[in-house]
Amino acid sequence: MANSSAVAVQVFSLNCWGIRYLSKQCAQRFAMIGDMLSNGEHDIVLLQEVWSEKDFLGLKKKLAFSHPHSHYFKSGVIGSGLAIFCKYRIHDTFLYRYSLNGYPYMAHHGDWFGGKAVGLAIIQIGNLTANVYVTHLHAEYCREKDSYLPHRIVQAWELQQFIRHTSAGADAVIVGGDLNMHPQDLGSRLLRSYTGLRDAYLETSQFDGCEDELGPFEKGIRIDYILFKGSAKAEIHCDWMSTTKGSIPEKPFPYSDHEALTVELRVKALRLQDPALGHLVDILTEARTEVKVGLHCAERMRYTATRTGIMGLALLILELAIAAVPWLALGAEQPFPRTSFYLLATLCCTILITTFLLYIFYTMELKSLQGAEDQMRLAVGSLQERLRGVTVDHTPLRKPPEGEEPGAFDKEE
Amino acid sequence: MANSSAVAVQVFSLNCWGIRYLSKQCAQRFAMIGDMLSNGEHDIVLLQEVWSEKDFLGLKKKLAFSHPHSHYFKSGVIGSGLAIFCKYRIHDTFLYRYSLNGYPYMAHHGDWFGGKAVGLAIIQIGNLTANVYVTHLHAEYCREKDSYLPHRIVQAWELQQFIRHTSAGADAVIVGGDLNMHPQDLGSRLLRSYTGLRDAYLETSQFDGCEDELGPFEKGIRIDYILFKGSAKAEIHCDWMSTTKGSIPEKPFPYSDHEALTVELRVKALRLQDPALGHLVDILTEARTEVKVGLHCAERMRYTATRTGIMGLALLILELAIAAVPWLALGAEQPFPRTSFYLLATLCCTILITTFLLYIFYTMELKSLQGAEDQMRLAVGSLQERLRGVTVDHTPLRKPPEGEEPGAFDKEE
Repeated sequence: MANSSAVAVQVFSLNCWGIRYLSKQCAQRFAMIGDMLSNGEHDIVLLQEVWSEKDFLGLKKKLAFSHPHSHYFKSGVIGSGLAIFCKYRIHDTFLYRYSLNGYPYMAHHGDWFGGKAVGLAIIQIGNLTANVYVTHLHAEYCREKDSYLPHRIVQAWELQQFIRHTSAGADAVIVGGDLNMHPQDLGSRLLRSYTGLRDAYLETSQFDGCEDELGPFEKGIRIDYILFKGSAKAEIHCDWMSTTKGSIPEKPFPYSDHEALTVELRVKALRLQDPALGHLVDILTEARTEVKVGLHCAERMRYTATRTGIMGLALLILELAIAAVPWLALGAEQPFPRTSFYLLATLCCTILITTFLLYIFYTMELKSLQGAEDQMRLAVGSLQERLRGVTVDHTPLRKPPEGEEPGAFDKEE
Repeated sequence: MANSSAVAVQVFSLNCWGIRYLSKQCAQRFAMIGDMLSNGEHDIVLLQEVWSEKDFLGLKKKLAFSHPHSHYFKSGVIGSGLAIFCKYRIHDTFLYRYSLNGYPYMAHHGDWFGGKAVGLAIIQIGNLTANVYVTHLHAEYCREKDSYLPHRIVQAWELQQFIRHTSAGADAVIVGGDLNMHPQDLGSRLLRSYTGLRDAYLETSQFDGCEDELGPFEKGIRIDYILFKGSAKAEIHCDWMSTTKGSIPEKPFPYSDHEALTVELRVKALRLQDPALGHLVDILTEARTEVKVGLHCAERMRYTATRTGIMGLALLILELAIAAVPWLALGAEQPFPRTSFYLLATLCCTILITTFLLYIFYTMELKSLQGAEDQMRLAVGSLQERLRGVTVDHTPLRKPPEGEEPGAFDKEE
């Protein structure tokens, strides 16, 4: 790799349909997906709709040997559902949450609560810096009367903005995910034209799947994509692409309600790159401590909100029970204290609603704090490894000279 | 500029303290700020706390000749408060909203409703691409017991992530804003060390202001900054920096509760750059149309919510008035229909709360849609100008050859 020869990278993308208790055979399917991925064929695994962190942790455990590096992107009330597993070390991650994502009162569509986003992971493939993006856009529930179209257009716009603005320093760009748009939809065209990303399906030399552009898969439409582009420093070609075709041989059901995509990209470095590095471990450790203090505090506050909420509920039940006594004892003559009843019930309901909103808020705060902490942990690990002079993934990394002052990084330009 | 000689760029930054009806002399101060800026001394003006879009529009009108290019960053319920006025054409903008920003129930602190963010504007200075960032971090209300510290650390972390990941393609980086952190605070160090940004105050050859590092200004602390860095393609030096010093000669009160910063940066191109361009005007126009449809729809929904809310309020007032009649007529013998009264009152309150929440939600949606539409309009304008082969700001732009197919941009790598 270090001598500029081409390297083959297998990229896998799947929308896992992982809504616990709602998606069919969710646990069994995640077990199947884990088994399949643990074969270690794929270098980069991009997953969407891993809604439960428990499912992510299950996969992480299973893939500890085949894919030692991973990141789960936290966002919104439930999470972004986005996860990456990788054979290459992940040096840095960043999440951009779309500013629009449906409506909270359309709870049956659920998109709003998911905090849909685009996640970025920066890895080194040989001497090349690759920006790997995973994303999931707002679902399309009715193609004829799509009230979410402006939201999806804004998401596609923000996605291309994010990719364009963050990938200027990358030698290779790989994007995988469920765009919820057909290839010729406005959002797809906007994304591809503005970023110059190429669609693996259209570029591949070999394709193992159905041939019809708009209906290559059994379920009919193509909304999952793997896109890529090179740079002045790297050339990328797509050697082959394959997809699952509904059922899986010797398995009772498919991996998901989406087909899984696999592509093999041939990445060729055009010339070597020598990145300048500095060390920031102390400052990052201090920042992590502060964030952990915040995490601890938010956890405590959420616990208090939960406890108060339970007390409010208990009080409400108690009140209803007390109210039920004269109602059941039909002979009783005492007048029912209506005013007190309504006032107390209003109080209980207020407590319940307030604590519920606080619970949601603290959950969002926890996710954001955890997300930042995860990113910082990754960054510290990456910096420490570089400081020790260890070359990761065959990357020739410059060890800072002895006696170089800590602030020297400030002067890099 | 085209012959690689140095160009002087004056950058101005001010937290305008622009909360309508709450900040003292808000309208008069904005008039003063507008008058001062319209002199046209400053090339790039970065403003924070322009909370009301009306104040932005007022400034825009006043600065139409001195600073023909401007952008107002929309975010959250109220807005980000961030604005940029510029003599250079703004080619592209992007907004990143911090994932954490205080608590909604700390309404007296107000930060949560502001949707604090970092805005990016991309301009051309001669042949150089400059990324200009404007930001405002969560306020510090109590330095000794700062419960928002983890939130501000996460914001500083996200700010450095955003700058680092989006500035790889930039030849020069300029950051201005109110960081609400002292120079030696953890967040400041994190930002400067990780990005390599240099502090104009520490780098300037000449300084016109108080000399004490932590108390350079009359009010005592330094939390407003202009930071910058060059690249392999550009060298930047800070020739001088000046600040306001509380009162303004011949004016009854200062511009703000913050001091205004002005720096003169000397930007020198190290070698020429020839950006490759393509055209996407049609696709962008189509996307703008879709976003406008969404805007129209959201406006209608917000109007409906407002109308329903007003009806709920009217119903509640009517009910209270009807209830007041037997209460006032003390002699009346009829029993008060308590159950109906409470049920109807609950209904009215539910309507009021729901429509209020919907109103807030649609306002946020409108801001996001408008924000994307603004960005698209800028992008279309920039592309159209380039397509016409007009050179803007002395930038040599390549006119696409006659007969070049519209999709040619796809193949740029």
